[in-house]
Amino acid sequence: MSLLAFLDYAGVAVFAATGALSASRKELDLIGFLFLAAVTGIGGGTLRDLVLGRVPVFWVLNPTYILVCVVAGVIVFFTAHLFESRYRLLIWLDAIGLSAYCVMGAAKGLAATGSPTIAIVTGALTATFGGILRDLLANEPSVLLRPEIYVTAALVGACVFVAANATFLPLYGSSALGVAAAFAVRGGALWFGWTFPSYKARPGRHPDDVM
Amino acid sequence: MSLLAFLDYAGVAVFAATGALSASRKELDLIGFLFLAAVTGIGGGTLRDLVLGRVPVFWVLNPTYILVCVVAGVIVFFTAHLFESRYRLLIWLDAIGLSAYCVMGAAKGLAATGSPTIAIVTGALTATFGGILRDLLANEPSVLLRPEIYVTAALVGACVFVAANATFLPLYGSSALGVAAAFAVRGGALWFGWTFPSYKARPGRHPDDVM
Amino acid sequence: MSLLAFLDYAGVAVFAATGALSASRKELDLIGFLFLAAVTGIGGGTLRDLVLGRVPVFWVLNPTYILVCVVAGVIVFFTAHLFESRYRLLIWLDAIGLSAYCVMGAAKGLAATGSPTIAIVTGALTATFGGILRDLLANEPSVLLRPEIYVTAALVGACVFVAANATFLPLYGSSALGVAAAFAVRGGALWFGWTFPSYKARPGRHPDDVM
Repeated sequence: MSLLAFLDYAGVAVFAATGALSASRKELDLIGFLFLAAVTGIGGGTLRDLVLGRVPVFWVLNPTYILVCVVAGVIVFFTAHLFESRYRLLIWLDAIGLSAYCVMGAAKGLAATGSPTIAIVTGALTATFGGILRDLLANEPSVLLRPEIYVTAALVGACVFVAANATFLPLYGSSALGVAAAFAVRGGALWFGWTFPSYKARPGRHPDDVM
Repeated sequence: MSLLAFLDYAGVAVFAATGALSASRKELDLIGFLFLAAVTGIGGGTLRDLVLGRVPVFWVLNPTYILVCVVAGVIVFFTAHLFESRYRLLIWLDAIGLSAYCVMGAAKGLAATGSPTIAIVTGALTATFGGILRDLLANEPSVLLRPEIYVTAALVGACVFVAANATFLPLYGSSALGVAAAFAVRGGALWFGWTFPSYKARPGRHPDDVM
Repeated sequence: MSLLAFLDYAGVAVFAATGALSASRKELDLIGFLFLAAVTGIGGGTLRDLVLGRVPVFWVLNPTYILVCVVAGVIVFFTAHLFESRYRLLIWLDAIGLSAYCVMGAAKGLAATGSPTIAIVTGALTATFGGILRDLLANEPSVLLRPEIYVTAALVGACVFVAANATFLPLYGSSALGVAAAFAVRGGALWFGWTFPSYKARPGRHPDDVM
């Protein structure tokens, strides 16, 4: 198995594990764990394949991805009490998944269209949509509405990959650079609490006052 | 019209009726009834067709499905006061819809890919996604987060259909077995209150304490 | 650029601006503005293209749509304090976007299938789905659950376009009629507070009492 294929499965497994963790917070049954694991693990790649017109989508062509989600969900179901006390480990695994996925989404978008803009969009979309679905279905506050840097890390990783790729670096080197860049941004946000300035309504002009 | 085609329209109509019932709980207008009826009635099949690459999706090829949703929505709008006092009837109709749909989703997944794993996934997805969308859009607690057995019934029905089909039973017989199995599980859950053991955080280790 | 192409970009820009306004209400950072702007601006057209089997979807074929969303998001980020005090202007721009989009969605549905029913459904879906996604992701009450006439305006515009088109009016004239009809309905709803009678549970039979 190539390193890229390994990263692909590892990304699915890690995102599936975060979906199952969400299920543990809601105290669902095993099937609920598997459902949220599958949605989170394959949701981003499914949307990517749909918008690019790459159908049937990847997990229909290769059901191994489903089995990876099932295994990850079962493991979390029986070990979540360990995972929970190691929540920071899981957040960092999620950061690895995000980093791998933004590059893979960008690589597939670039291969399908040749457009750097589309590659960056599909990179960010692949890395973030699974988590968005997970939060919607588990009725948790969306990662989008949290102040910490998240989507940005995926955008940075996809941009670095696309830029490095345009210099005729081999796919391998561009991918490694993109993954490292995304992980540096997301890891920095987790470690140092990096945020961007957020929009603040002017005093006396809060949206809710005037709408 | 064949029995399978009848079940298909009946499934759409029943799910559409549950969407319209959701609209009645939110006291929407007629258009709101029709919108939720259509989303619930055709949502699961739409996602199934998209991931399998069967596009245009079924209701674009055959707009009769839209008309079935409209008729179901109108009927519920004018008769919901009867339906509500007969909510258990509707839950049982929903169980019939779930049973029919998990088999049809599995049959279409199997026909498109030949993979039993994919057939089971598309069966469960077809039977449950419409209801998930309905709950998201109507801002109701998702059926996924309720303790009662629901997704499992769809999985059982799809598995039984796939297994029976592999024994070279005719499509008709496999379908009937699958529908019966799903209905037995979902009906049992409704009648006897069947649930699975759900995940419980260890005392003193509740997820919210440590996250 | 033809008038239709101009309307198309203007519609994306206006919907993207409403997404970014949602981000300002949640006090997100710039990336959050861009994300909600893109989802709202291109969400409806993406679903339309997917169900019609027109893949890759429109913004993959022409990334200018992404850039339009980015520009709209950036402008709103830096000027939202003006927009908020001009919220009614934005609502009216949204009405223009809805009016343009229901006709374009219907035109694409009609071109792809020849079915008036499908054209009306894709028209309504294109005009409303972006806003539905925006409200889901921003955790705002869905426009679907508000009493004011909204989906209906899109349906009326799509119906008028389809009917006018069937009389062999040129595309240009049918489109103008459809846009005008949708805007008249939505504008009237905003100006005069038009609503439809909503479903009311019978006294003593409120849904929540019996479910």
